[in-house]
Amino acid sequence: MAEAFAAVEIIAAKRDRHELSDAQIDWVVDAYTRGVVADEQMSALLMAILLNGMKAREISRWTDAMINSGERMSWSALKVPTVDKHSTGGVGDKITLPLAPLVAACGAAVPQLSGRGLGHTGGTLDKLEAIPGWRASLSNAEMLNVLQDVGAVICAAGAGLAPADKKLYALRDVTATVEAIPLIASSIMSKKIAEGTSALILDVKTGSGAFMSDPKRAEELARTMVSLGTRAGVKTRALVTAMDVPLGLTAGNALEVRESVEVLSGGGPADVVELTILLAREMLDAAGVKGAKDPAHALQDGSAMDKWRAMISAQGGNPDAPLPVAREREIVKAEKSGTISSMDALKVGVSAWRLGAGRERQGEKVQAGAGIEIHGKPGEKIEAGAPLFTLHTDEAERFTRAKEALQGAVHISESGEVSPRLPLVVARIDSHDLT
Amino acid sequence: MAEAFAAVEIIAAKRDRHELSDAQIDWVVDAYTRGVVADEQMSALLMAILLNGMKAREISRWTDAMINSGERMSWSALKVPTVDKHSTGGVGDKITLPLAPLVAACGAAVPQLSGRGLGHTGGTLDKLEAIPGWRASLSNAEMLNVLQDVGAVICAAGAGLAPADKKLYALRDVTATVEAIPLIASSIMSKKIAEGTSALILDVKTGSGAFMSDPKRAEELARTMVSLGTRAGVKTRALVTAMDVPLGLTAGNALEVRESVEVLSGGGPADVVELTILLAREMLDAAGVKGAKDPAHALQDGSAMDKWRAMISAQGGNPDAPLPVAREREIVKAEKSGTISSMDALKVGVSAWRLGAGRERQGEKVQAGAGIEIHGKPGEKIEAGAPLFTLHTDEAERFTRAKEALQGAVHISESGEVSPRLPLVVARIDSHDLT
Repeated sequence: MAEAFAAVEIIAAKRDRHELSDAQIDWVVDAYTRGVVADEQMSALLMAILLNGMKAREISRWTDAMINSGERMSWSALKVPTVDKHSTGGVGDKITLPLAPLVAACGAAVPQLSGRGLGHTGGTLDKLEAIPGWRASLSNAEMLNVLQDVGAVICAAGAGLAPADKKLYALRDVTATVEAIPLIASSIMSKKIAEGTSALILDVKTGSGAFMSDPKRAEELARTMVSLGTRAGVKTRALVTAMDVPLGLTAGNALEVRESVEVLSGGGPADVVELTILLAREMLDAAGVKGAKDPAHALQDGSAMDKWRAMISAQGGNPDAPLPVAREREIVKAEKSGTISSMDALKVGVSAWRLGAGRERQGEKVQAGAGIEIHGKPGEKIEAGAPLFTLHTDEAERFTRAKEALQGAVHISESGEVSPRLPLVVARIDSHDLT
Repeated sequence: MAEAFAAVEIIAAKRDRHELSDAQIDWVVDAYTRGVVADEQMSALLMAILLNGMKAREISRWTDAMINSGERMSWSALKVPTVDKHSTGGVGDKITLPLAPLVAACGAAVPQLSGRGLGHTGGTLDKLEAIPGWRASLSNAEMLNVLQDVGAVICAAGAGLAPADKKLYALRDVTATVEAIPLIASSIMSKKIAEGTSALILDVKTGSGAFMSDPKRAEELARTMVSLGTRAGVKTRALVTAMDVPLGLTAGNALEVRESVEVLSGGGPADVVELTILLAREMLDAAGVKGAKDPAHALQDGSAMDKWRAMISAQGGNPDAPLPVAREREIVKAEKSGTISSMDALKVGVSAWRLGAGRERQGEKVQAGAGIEIHGKPGEKIEAGAPLFTLHTDEAERFTRAKEALQGAVHISESGEVSPRLPLVVARIDSHDLT
């Protein structure tokens, strides 16, 4: 009874704009994980946090409480420094796929725990699961083995890692409390800190296709996360990067794996290659790898590709197997001739989602072959009637709503004018930049 | 699936300070009652409503949706006009007990659906249940019979009346979302409108012992409720009245019944008598009873007492049976001589609650005999060592925490100075006063 009363008092305190004490935060996160605080109490507290905010001290303590709800991994057995990357998610953001083996090829170890997608942004695990045989679930011992043998591993977080966050994430999803910076930052950072990486690069996306479409809010999220990582002893930096236009020329699971393999083969779209190399350099620098091979070379000399093949094979995947292809496809053509002046990332993401590349609720299956190929990007010329997009799905009835989502996604300018775009890197935040 | 998505969208809309549409309100209240919207979704919405507010149109629609979740009662079979009173609750607020039979004695019918107490304010049904044999649950047919035979009935709302409100009230209680004016107003008014009364007097308490301690917030609540009632065709007025000092000389169930009987016998504490008569006159005027007997006379000539005895008997109670007495009692004495300058209603209420007069959670039993007798009120002289309070409980171990609650409740002034008090009637709001 005393415990249940405490929950109401804590909700009331945040409702009334008070700071929560360390003891209140520790208790409420632990009691929620144990089921003593009910879902309906936690969701009221989450809404109060979303609307009334949290001080840096509260966010830090909340993050610690989530870490302490589960195990903490350690990679001290490795001879090389560990570094991880986290992206807040965007349309066509397949960067993790080429990046992890690339950084391993340059001398750091990448222990990456990834998630599945929800909504219009894809999930790294969904993409890799398009590869026949590949499995996302590894034991901690298997994870260490892959890290030692290959230097990079991408897998699902086990049930023992920050269980409070798992429960909270599912609750936030159904209660419209996802979009709170304290909750986003603590969710991401609790997993990354518990994961045991010694350095971390955050890729905080901004623009229409990102979770934080407003660059100022994205920068605030980035600062909050760099601060949390730094306080926890993880060498943390963040790049706020553009997500106003889709990354690369594909959005969808197998389609993005194919594009990632192109990048690892030394080709691929320029924006994907540029961001991959940029993030790889940040990761190697943060990890303190001295005299590392330059990532741009490692993409050309086959060493990153070798790591990719080894990494996929180590998790049961066949890197040589043909990737799944959707049963149905339909081409969307340019309505007039001119220069592509803009392409809205959100609309493309929602369209790919509706084709079956993403899920509407946790636990749903995604289609490996579904998604969108993009045949022209802003700044490029196109002729009326030429293909603009190829839509892929296993279920032809999905085309109608997918095409509806693309309404107004692309503007073609007869004058050749191109709409202003976000720079690739909008901001870079190091722990030195925190006040 | 479409339905569950709608819940998240509605929560997000209120989170983002948008007005909810009529269709959204109708759907979410209905879907919550049906169990399609989960408790954790509704509590997030309630917290967003508490923090971001609702426009008058939204509150009115929300109230209608709650009314429409259940049955609507009608008293058209009666030959006299109906009028009800609702108090937001205070310490020692037993006014309903003498008021209902008094108004019936003066010619109006009083169909009063009451509730049980939660927290430091008592509930009318808890008080009446101290009377041996009296039962709170009546069918609609029984209720009509008592109204026809006696003219006043006080009973529990049946399960068919505003079931949405019942479910919401239990949820608000555990999620710190009780204290939102739109939710309080719609909860009270949905039941009163569904109850079918043609006129309604609201007694909105303010001061330390009231739910709305701030007089400005109390007046805002009063205006909101008068507006809701007026829009629904109920002749509604509100008095904002003082609850800085306990009402009368008792707080506790059987103790308050005893005091109510004193008032009906033509005696009783002056403040209880004054407020009872004031409210009775408002009720008779709002009901449009012409040439009614004056309530002050009906207390003196025995006619109100006759109605009380008939009303209690009609619900199985024995008005002549001795009332329950608590097993243990302890006297709290004045520490010095002087004039009582102040007495804090909240502290007295919490103390009575801790003695067992109230409950901590819905469904708990209360002690019929527990509570506090007050031996002196502000403005009265007292000698050091004279009794100030008599505490009653069935469990002697409750005295310690009950006395802790009374710390600082009373100030005695040697100079004879008395602290400023709220006037009995702080504000009066008629439908004409609404802008």
